[in-house]
Amino acid sequence: MTTPNTANSSSAAGQSYDGKAKRMLPLSEHELEMYFKDDATAFNGSKHAVFDGKGALNCEITEKLLSYLGEHGIAHHIIARMSDRSMRVKRAEMFALEAVVRFKVAGSLQKRTGLPSNTPCVPPIVELYYKRDDLGDPIINEDHVRLLGLATPAEITEIKRQSLLIAECLLSLCKNAELDLVDMKFEFGKVDGKIILADEISPDTCRFRDASTGRILDKDLFRQDGGDLLAGYREVLKRLDNAISAQE
Amino acid sequence: MTTPNTANSSSAAGQSYDGKAKRMLPLSEHELEMYFKDDATAFNGSKHAVFDGKGALNCEITEKLLSYLGEHGIAHHIIARMSDRSMRVKRAEMFALEAVVRFKVAGSLQKRTGLPSNTPCVPPIVELYYKRDDLGDPIINEDHVRLLGLATPAEITEIKRQSLLIAECLLSLCKNAELDLVDMKFEFGKVDGKIILADEISPDTCRFRDASTGRILDKDLFRQDGGDLLAGYREVLKRLDNAISAQE
Repeated sequence: MTTPNTANSSSAAGQSYDGKAKRMLPLSEHELEMYFKDDATAFNGSKHAVFDGKGALNCEITEKLLSYLGEHGIAHHIIARMSDRSMRVKRAEMFALEAVVRFKVAGSLQKRTGLPSNTPCVPPIVELYYKRDDLGDPIINEDHVRLLGLATPAEITEIKRQSLLIAECLLSLCKNAELDLVDMKFEFGKVDGKIILADEISPDTCRFRDASTGRILDKDLFRQDGGDLLAGYREVLKRLDNAISAQE
Repeated sequence: MTTPNTANSSSAAGQSYDGKAKRMLPLSEHELEMYFKDDATAFNGSKHAVFDGKGALNCEITEKLLSYLGEHGIAHHIIARMSDRSMRVKRAEMFALEAVVRFKVAGSLQKRTGLPSNTPCVPPIVELYYKRDDLGDPIINEDHVRLLGLATPAEITEIKRQSLLIAECLLSLCKNAELDLVDMKFEFGKVDGKIILADEISPDTCRFRDASTGRILDKDLFRQDGGDLLAGYREVLKRLDNAISAQE
């Protein structure tokens, strides 16, 4: 039994969903506007700031990465760009799950395992989190997913399979972009019964490091007060852009 | 690859292990004394008290339950009783893992899922925790177990299989004892290459409730300052004793 939540707070076409860094606005029965805010939050919302231009950068990065994934056979929700900071996307019945893929130890995995930062995870680690702000998005296992009715065992298998596939595809692109892809978070939803990637992919949701120096180019700049966030995001966009262009 | 820790802090026969509620003292190359302390701790050691007689009660309950499990085909580490609060046990190479089986929602599962207390878990939930006091014994998934080299995939499967088997066996006994078995924690080790239960089973490690009234008879009495801990433990012992005697 599965009870996926819709991306909206209700299935009525008039309802919208206001998240920490994005807003989902209904356009029609089957389409939403995905609007990228300039807000940055961390530590479960306890740290917050606004970076003028972050929304547009993440919109651009997400569009480039999802287009790239689409060209590599991965289904996603993006239909078309609408403005510098919004896209028209398919309305998916969202799973209340976050899937995290990790190629190296960082963040909560370091706290959980006590392993040194940057320890390689070979093969990569997959983690599932229950998307519930009021509970602090706790880590869960597949038994918890079943108990909560968040996805069927077959759906979990498919979500994990796609997560690893997307991660490997991004890893190979990042290598060409001289970026070290440490870890990343994905969310999935169902459209016409099919599970597809229905999320942003950006330096808000992935850890990107400079491949030679390890310099942080992602939201850890904000979490750790480690430097110019927008400069990091712009650098990620430029390198991805160059790497994608070089492949075309 | 697996790197089980020995129950002792070193493999030398002269080393002993001093835990929060038990002490493991070497007797020989292959045997340990498992000594039950009167200490009770909770919330990762931040709450502590001493209950005169708790050690002897837990020793008695553990002996009865493991003997009962042994009669039902489950291998365990107990060899013989040594005193009112200690037993001679096989020295096992311990996995740095705790396996928790849950028949109903309580404690951390309630916090993690937001489900109401006592929600039935059908089929039961199995959770794995990394036994690391300095990290607060965090919950982990099977990918983390592999990354940390705590057990092989085949060993995880066997640990989960035995945990569910032991839990079902205890559940049926508890029904006859008019006890509601909510959840329980097991630890395993290897003796001669075979994975066996190598732990206490007591109201320190299981949640036991009165089947008709829901009255708490386990360590939650201490966690929640909910009444006479020793009276609860004595009640559990008496009821288990009667249920086991009635089956003989």
